[in-house]
Parts: sequence; structure tokens; C-alpha cells
Amino acid sequence: MLILTRPKIEALIDYRLAAEAIEDAYRAVSRGDVNLPPVGHITFPAGADCHIKYGHIAGDPIFVIKVATGFPGNAVRGLPTGNGMTLVLSAETGAVRAVLHDEMMLTDIRTGLGGAIATRLFARKDSRCITIIGSGVQAYRQIEAHAALLGNHLSFRIWARSPERAQRVVDQLAGIADITVADDLEQACRKADVIVTATGSTAPIIDHAWVRRGTHITAIGADAPGKQELDTALICAADHLYADLAAQCLDHGELATAARLGLIQPTDVIDLGDVLLDPSRGRSGDDAITIADLTGLAAQDIAIAKIVLNAHDDREGKKRV
Amino acid sequence: MLILTRPKIEALIDYRLAAEAIEDAYRAVSRGDVNLPPVGHITFPAGADCHIKYGHIAGDPIFVIKVATGFPGNAVRGLPTGNGMTLVLSAETGAVRAVLHDEMMLTDIRTGLGGAIATRLFARKDSRCITIIGSGVQAYRQIEAHAALLGNHLSFRIWARSPERAQRVVDQLAGIADITVADDLEQACRKADVIVTATGSTAPIIDHAWVRRGTHITAIGADAPGKQELDTALICAADHLYADLAAQCLDHGELATAARLGLIQPTDVIDLGDVLLDPSRGRSGDDAITIADLTGLAAQDIAIAKIVLNAHDDREGKKRV
Repeated sequence: MLILTRPKIEALIDYRLAAEAIEDAYRAVSRGDVNLPPVGHITFPAGADCHIKYGHIAGDPIFVIKVATGFPGNAVRGLPTGNGMTLVLSAETGAVRAVLHDEMMLTDIRTGLGGAIATRLFARKDSRCITIIGSGVQAYRQIEAHAALLGNHLSFRIWARSPERAQRVVDQLAGIADITVADDLEQACRKADVIVTATGSTAPIIDHAWVRRGTHITAIGADAPGKQELDTALICAADHLYADLAAQCLDHGELATAARLGLIQPTDVIDLGDVLLDPSRGRSGDDAITIADLTGLAAQDIAIAKIVLNAHDDREGKKRV
Repeated sequence: MLILTRPKIEALIDYRLAAEAIEDAYRAVSRGDVNLPPVGHITFPAGADCHIKYGHIAGDPIFVIKVATGFPGNAVRGLPTGNGMTLVLSAETGAVRAVLHDEMMLTDIRTGLGGAIATRLFARKDSRCITIIGSGVQAYRQIEAHAALLGNHLSFRIWARSPERAQRVVDQLAGIADITVADDLEQACRKADVIVTATGSTAPIIDHAWVRRGTHITAIGADAPGKQELDTALICAADHLYADLAAQCLDHGELATAARLGLIQPTDVIDLGDVLLDPSRGRSGDDAITIADLTGLAAQDIAIAKIVLNAHDDREGKKRV
């Protein structure tokens, strides 16, 4: 049984290879090739909980069980609120192949990559200005992933409620991207080719009037009931709505409010994997507003765990699983 | 994060302490103090599957996630069909506390202890002759647990379809118990004070006529739909029916057929934890036939994981979790 800790895992991840694997996983979901049982969930006092996501992609020699804990009370103790691990088991013998003690890092990275994959797929090809909203871990991971996947001609602006925290993101990532703090959210949206929302907001923070034609929005933050970052009118104004998994996003993602109000229908939303399989279902022209809502799939967890294992086996000169 | 492999885990387990912890867990279940979400389940080709059982006992500083795989096809490859691991996480911070890579051993041991706890609770106090049916891993674990918990005045007879395999159990356990192979199942049942059934049978193998008054039966084998070891008439003839969890045993344990036929009602079955909390609900007299049906609870997994961790911390001179 292989055991890898967080620093070792981080050193093994190539963002471009991981993105390819995650795109393959999105395609597999759209083809119906992924066995994804219902997510396990257990709650603890003070709003803490643990999710267990697991699944298997047909034909894969491994399957993955991801344990993710969220303990909001950790913040006051100076501990990370998210934690957990990823187990890789043989789909041929049931033996435990690896314990990836990533402490939630793989989830953060695959979420960043999901966002960058969506932006690469749906944004105008001439997009340059990316506005990032938020200053949490996903602000970092989205910028890293977008820089890795979309190239170094991009310029990032970051806006957050706390300018100090936004500045911290800039300071930390200045080496990998052209990035500055935005003072004004409205202006940062009006000037953007791409907007990536990565806050924990429970009320819309992006007004539909701030979004010009041709803009793409990747919405990451709303991943649970009650969260929302985009004005509902903006959802309605979009020419194309995409999702990592429409059913999930309509239920508890950014699209949930518009769906509940009957303003959008399930048929209005196209899965990311469907567009990867059939690119003609992507953006219709440079004038369109596109929104991609991502709530995260266990298939991404499977993909990134495979990448880590393959990279490890390659380094050790072993045959890949 | 502590990582323990199977041999280290086995060396840390004291059967009597583990039994106490498991009895506490049964009581906690009966008090409604255990948060046990639905068991996760994923299937693979050729009848293989993986179960994820997890739960938390109110007030415990830890919670447990148990991953158990069953790959029947392993047998022809000379590999164990059961495998898996037990994860222990902090219920206070969500951090992973320990990975117990027990390869299913903890499940086997806690199942053995569950059987011995039931026998100790329900069998006549003067019981001496225990007949074990089966020669699989539970034949070994039931004898070990019964010998550890009920004392060394016991005499075991073991019957299995394969006398060679029964002899193998005798050879391996002769050092810890007075044990012989039984040639005839009917006679072995007629002479028994206690019968422990631990086969994978899908048709009844114990006839009600073979069971004399005053006998106690601990039924271990039937833990999934379609499995049955006891004649349905025997279930009906019993004076007392007990279960580790009545709802579970009536649904897919030894009691399922009788329940489906309407021959027994949920109110006819008493949970083990209820008797531990109120001993007056146990055996009514030396003449009664008692049956305890065990299908296994995640609360047992929590209990035995705690015992392993406590024993490890004690050896290391650390404060217990």
C-alpha cells in the first residue's frame, strides 16, 4: 500500500496532464461510463460534516474513495477548515492500492482545473482579461489552473471583500501570472473577458448590468443550497448555460435559484462533457454570454488520483496501474 | 497520521477490552446515540463490490469510516476475497487520525466478538458444549472470541461440509480451546448447549427438530438477502429472538424469511443493546430456546477501531484520543 503525503502529491501533479485526465472524466460522465453512487454524508455539531464521494470509471483498473471533512470551527483555532484524503483501490482485487493523504489539496486542485477547463472551452478565443472574485483557496487554485491551461498572455485582476487578502493572492502568485488587485468590483466585471467567481457568498454579488456581451463566467463558489454569486437575471440573460453536471447544478449550484423560480429548464443547461464530445454545442459566437456552473464531480477526484498514481509509478519506473 | 498494518493491529487487540467496547457500542445504538448514515455501496463486474460503513457515537472524539471490499473472483487467484481498511478521523477537527490497514481483519474480529457477546448474554449459564457450523474465517474468529469471553471450561465441536477444512480449524486452534471435529451435523446440534452458525449457506441447514430445549443459537452467516442457515420453523419455535439490530436482521439477516412470510413481527425481536441495558429482557429460563441473529453494525467497527487506537496510544505512552 502506497502512502503519499501532501507535499509529495503536490510535486507529482502536472496541471496539463491532470486537465486531460479530468476532461476524459467529464466525457466518461456524459457517455454514462461512470458509476457514481450517492455521496455519503455525516454531520457533527457546530455545522461540521464529512462527505464521502466515490466512484469508478468503466474499464479503469482502480476506483477512488474521497473523504472530505469541513469543520468551520477550525478557523478560530488556526487550523484548516477543510481536510481529508483520497483512497485508491484496485477495481480488480479490491485491495487498497494507495492512501493519498492530501488534506483536501487534490479537491482544491481538481476544482481549479475544472474551472480552467470550462473557461478554455467556453470563453472567446481572444480573451485576455480575467477577473477573479474571492480570496480563498480557490482564488489561488483558479489562477494557477487558468495560467497553466490558457497560457501566459492572460492578465488577472482579483477583487475580494478584503483588499488585504486580495493583495496576499497577488503577492503569492505574482511569479506565475500578470495579476493586480481590482479596487472596484463593477469596473473589474465590466472590463473582463472572463469572470471567475470563487466566493462563499449566499447573495448575488455580480449584477447582470456589469457583464458585457461576449463575456464568459465560470461560477465556482455556489456548491451547496443557499449559496449564490450571480444575479438571477444574469443567469436568464446568458446565451449558453453549461454545468459540470446539470442535474447537480440545478439542484444546489449557481443555477438552483433560477431553476426553482422556473426561469430556466433542465434542457437549457448542457453538460461540460457533452461539449467536449461535441464541440458544436459550445459558444455560438463572440457576442454570446456564456456561464459555466461547477459543483464538482467524483469523476474529477478519480481522474486526479490516477494522475498522481501514474506520475508516482513513472518516477519509480513501475508499470502504471 | 498514524498508519498501522494488519500484524501490528492484531497484536494490539485485547479481546476482553474489545468486547467491552463493543457492548458499549450496542448500548449506544439502543440509546439512539450513534449516528449511522446509510451504508455506501458500489458494484463491480463478476459480483464484486465495496461497502463503506461509517458512523459516530455521540460524544466520541473520533469517528470511523470502514471500507470493505468483496471480490469473489480473487479465490481462484489465491487472493483473499475480503479486503479493506478502517479510517479513524477526529470528530473535533476532521483531520485523519489513523489509517488501519487491517485488510478486513477488524471486521472479522468484531464479528467474532459480537457472536461471543450474544452467546454470553443469552446462553444458559451452565452451557459447556458449543457446536460451530462452518470452516471459514468466522469459524476461527467465533471460537477465538468464545474461548476468550466465556472461559476455558468450554468444549467445541466443529462441523463443516468439508471435514478436511473442519480438521484444519481444529489443528490451528487446538492450543486455545478443547475442540474436535463433529462427523454428524444432526448429532452435533442435538448435543449442543450452544450452536454458532457461520456458513454462507443460502438454504437452511439446521432442522428445528435437532435443537433441544434450553439451546442458544448465535446465527452469524446470513448477512445478505438470500442467505439462510436455520429452518424457518426453528425461528418460529424459539422462545426469544434477539438481533444486533432488529430492523437490519428482519430485512436481510437470518430472520428475513420468517419476517417476509409474516411468521414473526418486528416486535418479536429484541436488540442486543436493549438487553445489555435491561438484563431482565434476556433468557426467561433454562428451558427456553434463544436465537441471536447478527448482521454486523458500524458501531462495532467504531468500537474496535477505538480499542486499537487506545492500545497503541497506551503503548506509546500517549494520551488516549
